[in-house]
Amino acid sequence: MVLPFDILEYQKRLQAVKGNMADRGIDVLLITDPANMNYLSGYDAWSFYVHQMLVILIDEPQPLWIGRYQDAGGARATTWIYDDNVIAYPDYYVHSAVYHPMDFAAEIIRQIGQGKRRIGVEMDHYYFTGMALERLKKGLPDASFTDGSLLVNEVRMIKSDQEIEYMRRAARIADLAMTQGVESVRPGVRECDTAAEIYYHLVKGTPEYGGDYPSIVPLLPTGDHTSIPHLTWTDRPFVEGSAVIIELAGCYKRYHVPLARTVSIGQPNEKMKQVAPVVLEGIQTVLDAAKPGVTCGELEEVWRHTIKKYGYEKEARLGYSVGMNYPPDWGEHTASIRRDDPTVLQPNMTFHLIPALWFDTDGIEISETFRVTETGSERFTTYPQELVIRDHLDLSGQIS
Amino acid sequence: MVLPFDILEYQKRLQAVKGNMADRGIDVLLITDPANMNYLSGYDAWSFYVHQMLVILIDEPQPLWIGRYQDAGGARATTWIYDDNVIAYPDYYVHSAVYHPMDFAAEIIRQIGQGKRRIGVEMDHYYFTGMALERLKKGLPDASFTDGSLLVNEVRMIKSDQEIEYMRRAARIADLAMTQGVESVRPGVRECDTAAEIYYHLVKGTPEYGGDYPSIVPLLPTGDHTSIPHLTWTDRPFVEGSAVIIELAGCYKRYHVPLARTVSIGQPNEKMKQVAPVVLEGIQTVLDAAKPGVTCGELEEVWRHTIKKYGYEKEARLGYSVGMNYPPDWGEHTASIRRDDPTVLQPNMTFHLIPALWFDTDGIEISETFRVTETGSERFTTYPQELVIRDHLDLSGQIS
Repeated sequence: MVLPFDILEYQKRLQAVKGNMADRGIDVLLITDPANMNYLSGYDAWSFYVHQMLVILIDEPQPLWIGRYQDAGGARATTWIYDDNVIAYPDYYVHSAVYHPMDFAAEIIRQIGQGKRRIGVEMDHYYFTGMALERLKKGLPDASFTDGSLLVNEVRMIKSDQEIEYMRRAARIADLAMTQGVESVRPGVRECDTAAEIYYHLVKGTPEYGGDYPSIVPLLPTGDHTSIPHLTWTDRPFVEGSAVIIELAGCYKRYHVPLARTVSIGQPNEKMKQVAPVVLEGIQTVLDAAKPGVTCGELEEVWRHTIKKYGYEKEARLGYSVGMNYPPDWGEHTASIRRDDPTVLQPNMTFHLIPALWFDTDGIEISETFRVTETGSERFTTYPQELVIRDHLDLSGQIS
Repeated sequence: MVLPFDILEYQKRLQAVKGNMADRGIDVLLITDPANMNYLSGYDAWSFYVHQMLVILIDEPQPLWIGRYQDAGGARATTWIYDDNVIAYPDYYVHSAVYHPMDFAAEIIRQIGQGKRRIGVEMDHYYFTGMALERLKKGLPDASFTDGSLLVNEVRMIKSDQEIEYMRRAARIADLAMTQGVESVRPGVRECDTAAEIYYHLVKGTPEYGGDYPSIVPLLPTGDHTSIPHLTWTDRPFVEGSAVIIELAGCYKRYHVPLARTVSIGQPNEKMKQVAPVVLEGIQTVLDAAKPGVTCGELEEVWRHTIKKYGYEKEARLGYSVGMNYPPDWGEHTASIRRDDPTVLQPNMTFHLIPALWFDTDGIEISETFRVTETGSERFTTYPQELVIRDHLDLSGQIS
């Protein structure tokens, strides 16, 4: 078994989490977020569609893994957890109207003498359902429950050098997939054909290393759907004179580097020609301003003042902390680049800056993922920072 | 706007859901499961990483959609809901430590005079978090809450002819992706290369229609990982003499047809030669037994007796109801083909039958997705039902 990180790195992460637990008075932390499970143990499998968890005891060096019987082998194969600490529930607990995996988990927690302690749960994380909360409370009547949401995520915000290296690999994959995806866009090609091209390169990766699946599918809203950021592809063909926004992320060992570009199919219209330079200038001023000590709220202010000069406003947040994750999101849910966010930038924090401007029937998105350095910021990807123009006059030789 | 189904079909579904609501004494049903939101409204977007819902009032003909401001356009573009019934919360509710979208939803529910009614919530569905439950209860102190889990899913179990048609298209995509994926398997090719090939065809689809993204990524556990079903691909090359299990689903308009095959790279070993015919015979006896009136539990019994003749046992369930879904699962979480499941088969129910046998260091999976017909069952895919052998002697001409 080869873990993606040195065991010492996992232990360091666990120490930091225990520090946060102590600050919040939590004795036992039940981690159900698949990214947090992976971050602390290495566990990596598509098993988060059933209930599972990592149990962190503040006074024990090893976490417990609790999950489905058929996934226990995965826990042994992909983590640094001792085999004895991998505890599996039988298959009849899965999607049953009678049995619930959290009844099993509560029983284990009682059996190991932790039933009367202060227990943290990830209240607002994906896959921790209302039912999971109720069954745990019922099974552990003598415990007191408290919210441990984002406790691990806060530790995740500052990346180690190894994590940054994985993001650099993800960035190379993102550049490659964007290049190939954009090259496939021309009138008559279907949105699904371009999505297929992008997926192919995201997963195949480079000759040196393969890609991992991104936590969000490639999004490519087209034409009047460019005002609607989260629609997925259709099988309609691209049309000359319209635009497509490609948002994708390269992924390596679950670490993401997202990248978005707006592609004009044929020459852009007047509005796009006006708006694109505003977005590009806004991005540049934010990247220039980003450095240790500045807050996320201050970055938003820089953007707001820049675009206001041209008469634009934007309500949605500009970006968010990014890194390791599982579907349905690659964001980390901690810092957002938006008004009043107090997060102070520190070296090796990583953000996806995506200051889209959406209008009634169209929109433009150009994004960059950046790392905070000791003195400023640096982009992960090298894809040209511009409105991409696919003019069919330039493509005549390429149409197959 | 072109909805994937006739408005009458949505209204019929809504009527059936209201019947279930009345049976359970529910006045207001808050639907947060993205598949259920789509099933009743047509809403289809990658926005389920933020809180959103459909509100079904038992005495109103139209649902309400509540979601994020930037997704409201998607709700208007992809549903049959009147624009007035699309209600959006501002962006500062997203991933905030202060504001929660369920506070907003509770306020709306009070404003429309529904704050004192009996409210059903999808307690154990993905994306309905413990925090969502608590904030709703706090915001609606005069309401009584009850579990509405699977209420919509039960309606989804029996497909309409249009849904079956979409699954047939998904099946054609599954056959295509399996064919191309298997052909790419040979010693020296990396797992990620085959995964890329599969993804490419799943998304590109056929010349007549594009593919949609499957709710689970293609799984291809290889070598000693064939005993661990939910590990995703790596970038290790395939090795002569080992096996890979490919599990994928074709997807069309969110409807899935899963398909799994075990591929022997080179001639299979003795164990695989022994086990494969047992699994194949087991599948055939189950498909032969499946018809209206038979229960899921009885299907499991047929399988159990068949493999017992050869000395095998299997603890995990054999299969489950399948159809429309979103990540992280394509199963419907209603009927399972397992011991004692009382579900009575009816025409146009659809199941993924995946009677895997896993051992300590290897395993075999061969699956079929089938529809219950008026008199029996029929497979969706046409891919040969066999242990697939990729012997390099046959491939010499193909290695590029």
